[in-house]
Amino acid sequence: MNPAEWLIRSAVRTPDAPALLQGEELRATYAEFADRAARIGAALVAEGIAPGDRVALFAKNCPEYLEAMYGAWFAGAVAVPINGKLHPREAAWIIEASEAKLAFTGGPENDLGVETVDLKGPAYADLLRQAPMPAPVEIAANETVWLFYTSGTTGRPKGVCITSANVQAMCLGYFSDVDSVEPQDAILYAAPMSHGAGLYNFVHVMRGARHVVPRSGGFEADEILDLAPKLQHVSMFAAPTMIRRLVDRARATGRTGEGIKTIVYGGGPMYVADIIDAVDVMGPRFVQIYGQGESPMTITALSRELVADRTHPRWRARLASVGLAHSPVSVRIADPEGRALPAGETGEILVSGAAVMAGYWQNPEASAKALRDGWLWTGDLGTMDADGFVTLQDRSKDVIISGGTNIYPREVEEALLLHPSVHEVAVVGKPDPEWGESVVAFVTPAPGSEIDPAALDQHCCEQIARFKRPKAYRVVTQLPKNNYGKVLKTELRKMVTEED
Amino acid sequence: MNPAEWLIRSAVRTPDAPALLQGEELRATYAEFADRAARIGAALVAEGIAPGDRVALFAKNCPEYLEAMYGAWFAGAVAVPINGKLHPREAAWIIEASEAKLAFTGGPENDLGVETVDLKGPAYADLLRQAPMPAPVEIAANETVWLFYTSGTTGRPKGVCITSANVQAMCLGYFSDVDSVEPQDAILYAAPMSHGAGLYNFVHVMRGARHVVPRSGGFEADEILDLAPKLQHVSMFAAPTMIRRLVDRARATGRTGEGIKTIVYGGGPMYVADIIDAVDVMGPRFVQIYGQGESPMTITALSRELVADRTHPRWRARLASVGLAHSPVSVRIADPEGRALPAGETGEILVSGAAVMAGYWQNPEASAKALRDGWLWTGDLGTMDADGFVTLQDRSKDVIISGGTNIYPREVEEALLLHPSVHEVAVVGKPDPEWGESVVAFVTPAPGSEIDPAALDQHCCEQIARFKRPKAYRVVTQLPKNNYGKVLKTELRKMVTEED
Ligand SMILES: Nc1ncnc2c1ncn2[C@@H]1O[C@H](COP(=O)(O)O)[C@@H](O)[C@H]1O
Repeated sequence: MNPAEWLIRSAVRTPDAPALLQGEELRATYAEFADRAARIGAALVAEGIAPGDRVALFAKNCPEYLEAMYGAWFAGAVAVPINGKLHPREAAWIIEASEAKLAFTGGPENDLGVETVDLKGPAYADLLRQAPMPAPVEIAANETVWLFYTSGTTGRPKGVCITSANVQAMCLGYFSDVDSVEPQDAILYAAPMSHGAGLYNFVHVMRGARHVVPRSGGFEADEILDLAPKLQHVSMFAAPTMIRRLVDRARATGRTGEGIKTIVYGGGPMYVADIIDAVDVMGPRFVQIYGQGESPMTITALSRELVADRTHPRWRARLASVGLAHSPVSVRIADPEGRALPAGETGEILVSGAAVMAGYWQNPEASAKALRDGWLWTGDLGTMDADGFVTLQDRSKDVIISGGTNIYPREVEEALLLHPSVHEVAVVGKPDPEWGESVVAFVTPAPGSEIDPAALDQHCCEQIARFKRPKAYRVVTQLPKNNYGKVLKTELRKMVTEED
Repeated sequence: MNPAEWLIRSAVRTPDAPALLQGEELRATYAEFADRAARIGAALVAEGIAPGDRVALFAKNCPEYLEAMYGAWFAGAVAVPINGKLHPREAAWIIEASEAKLAFTGGPENDLGVETVDLKGPAYADLLRQAPMPAPVEIAANETVWLFYTSGTTGRPKGVCITSANVQAMCLGYFSDVDSVEPQDAILYAAPMSHGAGLYNFVHVMRGARHVVPRSGGFEADEILDLAPKLQHVSMFAAPTMIRRLVDRARATGRTGEGIKTIVYGGGPMYVADIIDAVDVMGPRFVQIYGQGESPMTITALSRELVADRTHPRWRARLASVGLAHSPVSVRIADPEGRALPAGETGEILVSGAAVMAGYWQNPEASAKALRDGWLWTGDLGTMDADGFVTLQDRSKDVIISGGTNIYPREVEEALLLHPSVHEVAVVGKPDPEWGESVVAFVTPAPGSEIDPAALDQHCCEQIARFKRPKAYRVVTQLPKNNYGKVLKTELRKMVTEED
């Protein structure tokens, strides 16, 4: 199944429905969106792009992003979306690794080592003058449509082959476990379209809903809070740190998220205190997902009702979890041999099912390591309770080993966040000659507050075991984060290591 | 993926939500539904049912139907639903052909040639006393979960292997092209659960919605119109002839379908005059689907908006169509070699994609005939317009060849239905020494009307080419229909052939 088929069908059903918007401004109806994609497809074919060839997209969010991506699919090509915030050298590396024949870019780029088409330039306008392809090239279920480069926190990024079948499974997972989509809905791309936010385009194309790129092209809390009431029925994907900012701004300006239907959060840990706060301020608009490039957006989900629940005896534990397996997959916690562990025991999280990638691009060793006996080994550690709720544990490299005992940073962070003076926090281990590692907390103060290490120390003693409490605090104005809003613990560890 | 997993997850998310109802009466919450299925699964395992074994269900609609079916899946068995209205001899044939090891029945049955458990009897109550299985048996994506016996209008019924992957594709097709499902929704089983109506249980289990069996167990227009306002948010699958009855009763009693969210229709031709009437009386509550056992419920769909549309220049043609390809499949009109035909040309309808069956049960020849080069040959004839709308033509055996020219009964039927005196109509060919065949119309009169052949003849001349008009009319009080409400043209043809 070629995703362009979905676009065409929506264009036939509702040709005049708004499809692509920049802020409030309509940029293309569904008929126009499909027409442009068909023209780009034709132009790519004319340029020599053959079915299965890779076409990169190295741009920040913009309406043309989706036109070009569907254009690539029209031609039967594999889209290789690259985060627009990467350094051109990093993008060039991905382009080379994926052997992309052409790259759409968000501005003039000369150093990518491949032919480029600037989405904002005259060459792009030229493509749109091609006569549209009468029909998209056929794409089989097991063929890759989206080559997703992992952020590569460990080593070089790897290319995840997301097939048409994977996309369909992801769509089923969205409809069944995340949210329904109605034609009047609008997905707002506040997070990079090269990542999860962009993967959510499919369900919205299928249902003929609106795709909105904010004028800023990214995540600006005030912009979103202003735009949503005008657009109405807005859904979006956001990293936990974005939600934090959104909630802070909503509270500060006396707003509650009017016009927002659903905020799907995931991609990193959401602290319990933060999500409680979010629901308090903005209501039951939140759904959590846990996924990774290798099983895109589709491992577990915590439903809107469960995110908002405060009645179940274990509601706090559930809120700290990532929820239940998504409908198209099975999830298991396994020992190193892949055997399912009993409820409550920590092991690696394994996933199987239609959402799981075909493998890594031209990397049979890495594929064989990640995919064993029909299960994807996620590299994430976690537990599953008797009901099936999965709780992630810190990645093994984040675990602090102090005096021979494991300390999970998340637990310490959750405790610190309960203190009113703490705004954001990240806990890492610092090499220690006596204990192996010692616990260090990086904190940003809440507006108008000051950090008092003695007060925090006392607070920790009330919340968690003594040995887990930070030995030292570093007050910072902001935490280092990557482009998806994930806190870069590697950098923090480097900082504490180099201190001495 | 074992469908029982979906049940368990809904039971964990919303244990107290109403799951199974008989009329308005709650029969099981989701926790109870899952618990009973887990007990039945355990009992089946104890009886020696192994993964992959077939378990038949020969019963009319009842809440226990779903319990037993999910019980079978708990044990990893293949469900073989058999229409409860079949003769026990026909059921016994299917049970033998599928080598089912056990049959759940809707009453005492002794002649099925297999061990039976009466869903209403003490043996069933016994099963529920087993301790529940801790977890369902794993079922892989390519394993059969539902062995669907075709109605067998030509020859012996064949068993369609509907795999877990097919079910998932069908669910995606429902969510993306038919309707969204919310937890407060209720699916009403007015058509047999052994068929399409039952297949729609999955999306409702995934979303934790209500499953309602009407007290009558079947399709009673007044019962539905009375029940829907009490239940609210009701969806159902209905054959076109059922909609006809529903609309007639709604009009007669001054009702408009309050409480009904969606009626999905399909499984046989819907006449344009009838669906216009239905929308006039009951509003935009209708969605059409076209499917067959071999691509369950998932070939094409005509959306709610398109069914209600009266503005598009070709709205009538679209209303006479079955809509656009469902999201998980591709559809093509092919010549006998399988080559796609240009828009407007008649050929066989081919489908490919994740919804298409794995093959027929133990019937490699029939499978090889139906599945060729990755396409399912549906046996249906049709055309596709430039926009992708598929219009079915009468099955080749229904086409009347008179004086060497093809006459499509549907066209004549559509014309006759526009006449106020005609309630229902079916047109067949009668062997004719001079013309090969001649056109005969069976008509039932509208309430309070009389059929005047001369008036109908004149009416036809105004609507269609002269040579297509019926040479003879047979006024009957009702048309022969099968258990799914399909008019049995074979019987009508037999009647006219035997007249002489
Ligand atoms: N809801 C979540 N909560 C905590 N961590 C998450 C969540 N979703 C994703 N992650 C983490 O992010 C990783 C995926 O990163 P990526 O492949 O870049 O999307 C996962 O393997 C998890 O470690």
